[in-house]
Amino acid sequence: MSVTRRPARRRRVGRRPGGPDTRGEILVAARTEFGERGYDGASIRAIAARSRVDPALVHHYFGTKEQLFLAAMEIPFVPSEIAAQIVTGPIDSIGERAARTFLATWGDPVKRAPFLALLRSAMTHETAAALLRQFASRVMLARVVERLELPDRELRVEAVVSHLLGVAIMRYVVKIEPLASVSDEELVGMIGPVIQRYFED
Amino acid sequence: MSVTRRPARRRRVGRRPGGPDTRGEILVAARTEFGERGYDGASIRAIAARSRVDPALVHHYFGTKEQLFLAAMEIPFVPSEIAAQIVTGPIDSIGERAARTFLATWGDPVKRAPFLALLRSAMTHETAAALLRQFASRVMLARVVERLELPDRELRVEAVVSHLLGVAIMRYVVKIEPLASVSDEELVGMIGPVIQRYFED
Repeated sequence: MSVTRRPARRRRVGRRPGGPDTRGEILVAARTEFGERGYDGASIRAIAARSRVDPALVHHYFGTKEQLFLAAMEIPFVPSEIAAQIVTGPIDSIGERAARTFLATWGDPVKRAPFLALLRSAMTHETAAALLRQFASRVMLARVVERLELPDRELRVEAVVSHLLGVAIMRYVVKIEPLASVSDEELVGMIGPVIQRYFED
Repeated sequence: MSVTRRPARRRRVGRRPGGPDTRGEILVAARTEFGERGYDGASIRAIAARSRVDPALVHHYFGTKEQLFLAAMEIPFVPSEIAAQIVTGPIDSIGERAARTFLATWGDPVKRAPFLALLRSAMTHETAAALLRQFASRVMLARVVERLELPDRELRVEAVVSHLLGVAIMRYVVKIEPLASVSDEELVGMIGPVIQRYFED
């Protein structure tokens, strides 16, 4: 067995420079801050204060608040990239792209696990529900909504996401047949044209 | 404080007649049996054996296996009635009736609580997932599916249920706005015509 030697930890109170476990400590502080204050209420400054580092170090390690949230919640994809895949292309096939992008993301167990964990918490804890609600509406849905010119566009995008979320739960959690076994493309072919209706006036 | 006197409990091994807590004991046995064997594998006979009563007494108290399941899971509505509300009426408004019936059921916190509990368990326990899967497909969806004459009718009904389940989660658990605050009828007006597509060839 080998023992890794580390320099003795500084006992100084206040800000400290990055060390080998600083990154992990920031993530712990971020989870606490997001959990207690929700996505909107949390700030890089407060997370830095909790982990006794300079806010610049948090930015250096993790980038924006959104990127820090994704890292803290272990969400292994970038919402802005998902949104870009959906909105880029002709409007008359946006339903199909939404279904395909969503199914491809949820189809990967590594990508859906952290979302299922957050959703499960949201079912019993209002704080987790608030976090999911704020993050979903401010970060994920907003990027698609802002690209649409339709009445009730928030409600329409929420209806689309509801449908795809429900499909994911029935397909990957409840595993009901035949929904659990058909191919992604068969589902895209069935669901795409239906949710397309939400994108049309 | 008053103390309720009960006759001393018989210690006889084997079947016993119904007593004041027999009903509760059957429900406990039913939850165990359904949990361990799933909906399909559970039987009135085995539940009776677990609670050391005659199967006829289980039927007497609870009726069919389906009715016993509803009682054991504390599901306060009758799936066959829900299905009847959806399938009774013109086929060109079945989407609207499905949305209205589903929203009215989930809109009642007492009615959605046991389903949310089962769904939450299904997210971590495969046995709970199996129970939900079997019950949903054999009992709830089958009643609508059998009334349709369409290709891929199971898959279509599952798509409809997925959508409505997703709406319920976004509306009542995540509580995302504006979805959480619009009226049932506004949602029925938006979702009904969209899911109607699944009922058309």
